Amino acid sequence: MRSLVFLDGRTADPDAPQIRVDDQVVQRGDGVFETILVRHGKARELGPHLKRLARSAEMLDLPEPDLAAWERVSQAVIDNYRGGPEMALKLVYTRGVDGVPTGFGLGSPIEEKVVRQRAEGVAVATLERGLDPSLTETAPWLLIGAKTLSYGVNMAAVREAQRRGADDAVFVFGEQILEGPTSSVVIAKDRTLYTPPPSMGILPGTTQAAVFRAAERAGWGTKVEQLRVADLLAADAVFLTSSVRLITRVHTLNGQQLPDAAELHRELNALYEAEYA
Amino acid sequence: MRSLVFLDGRTADPDAPQIRVDDQVVQRGDGVFETILVRHGKARELGPHLKRLARSAEMLDLPEPDLAAWERVSQAVIDNYRGGPEMALKLVYTRGVDGVPTGFGLGSPIEEKVVRQRAEGVAVATLERGLDPSLTETAPWLLIGAKTLSYGVNMAAVREAQRRGADDAVFVFGEQILEGPTSSVVIAKDRTLYTPPPSMGILPGTTQAAVFRAAERAGWGTKVEQLRVADLLAADAVFLTSSVRLITRVHTLNGQQLPDAAELHRELNALYEAEYA
Repeated sequence: MRSLVFLDGRTADPDAPQIRVDDQVVQRGDGVFETILVRHGKARELGPHLKRLARSAEMLDLPEPDLAAWERVSQAVIDNYRGGPEMALKLVYTRGVDGVPTGFGLGSPIEEKVVRQRAEGVAVATLERGLDPSLTETAPWLLIGAKTLSYGVNMAAVREAQRRGADDAVFVFGEQILEGPTSSVVIAKDRTLYTPPPSMGILPGTTQAAVFRAAERAGWGTKVEQLRVADLLAADAVFLTSSVRLITRVHTLNGQQLPDAAELHRELNALYEAEYA
Repeated sequence: MRSLVFLDGRTADPDAPQIRVDDQVVQRGDGVFETILVRHGKARELGPHLKRLARSAEMLDLPEPDLAAWERVSQAVIDNYRGGPEMALKLVYTRGVDGVPTGFGLGSPIEEKVVRQRAEGVAVATLERGLDPSLTETAPWLLIGAKTLSYGVNMAAVREAQRRGADDAVFVFGEQILEGPTSSVVIAKDRTLYTPPPSMGILPGTTQAAVFRAAERAGWGTKVEQLRVADLLAADAVFLTSSVRLITRVHTLNGQQLPDAAELHRELNALYEAEYA
């Protein structure tokens, strides 16, 4: 059902061992990744995802990825997939073994939890990230804003949010909004969409960019600027966006119920989906 | 030559693929590890290493490791090893696949670079870590002080240090000394050893503890207290300690040559080695 293809074109069994224990991803979480939504055989925003993969790789001093080869891998994973109409395509590029990188694409079904949250929305808890955004420029070795496989903290933050009765986390620096552990934060206020800038030390969101593009085309305003927790509480709607979760409503923030944004959600979702019709 | 044993007792080929692509260590760097020195078949500080593995696992909400099973794995790796008299034993414990953790022990030769640095010492560069030590207690989801497999930043810091003409890095928070990416910082001054406290958001060092124990027995003073960059420049000797690098002298700090500490190094090394004679 799942589909696995390595960068050299080799198809492989995702239920069998495929990675050596001395691969630097196993030894050190040393690599980068992208997750891409594929619907009805079409990969969404493949170009921006590959561009971001190359940017993350550069931040980690990995050999420049051969984007044509990654496009072929992506297509091969799609061609081999025998699941439903939707697939999550994860591209993984690691420092590998003895200086030879490992790369593969894995096609999997969308997790049921994610599908449910798309419909029902999520409760989120804000959690301190601890890294001053100014370090993004001055301390590049901290890899702030790179999509790396060293995501242990991101996963721990989701578990902490769940302990607090929420579904997901939003990282903050003091009162300033950053991003979710695996998503971008977008708010709607007076028919303008807002998201924090990458200079805050966050990942530029591919889905966030697509939603902004679609909204602009329909006459919405869009602004990339710093947001505070209070801005989320005062918004008409708060969303987490990512490739697989699409535009997911935030219905509760730190235990406080947010305004019903079902109507805005439907409108933005329709605009976004029209991009791929 | 190398030796690989899984937590269930299965021996395996370290040159063959052994880990699934959907193991959470490959997907997210989600797991913990320890590296232990084995000399002439004897694992040094196995108890403290296993205790720290359990502590890291708890910080990551991993199932409590079965330390008796990890002891058996360690012994099996040692028994199967066909290299020289020294071996690095790496224990890796990941969140695994579908909630079933993956655990293995891998025995490898000590890297030549490390052996050379033990003899010749190292040049180090201080690099900002960016995480306020006070977050260690208040933001446990940041996993500060856990030995996790999400070590991408640690590896990036070593590369940055090398770009600056050094061999290794020492993380700082402002002027305050933290630790190396894979080592503890120990200084000697007036026959007292100093190292920063774990409350600074650093890993409690097993080798640092052994060196302190050995030095105390020989009449040295030992202090665990905050150190600043200026304290390193004013010290009689600066060392990086870790299981595989033992006590390695720092001969150069941010391009500035430090006093010749060869004599102190010999003395402390002899005291430390006597612990295992």
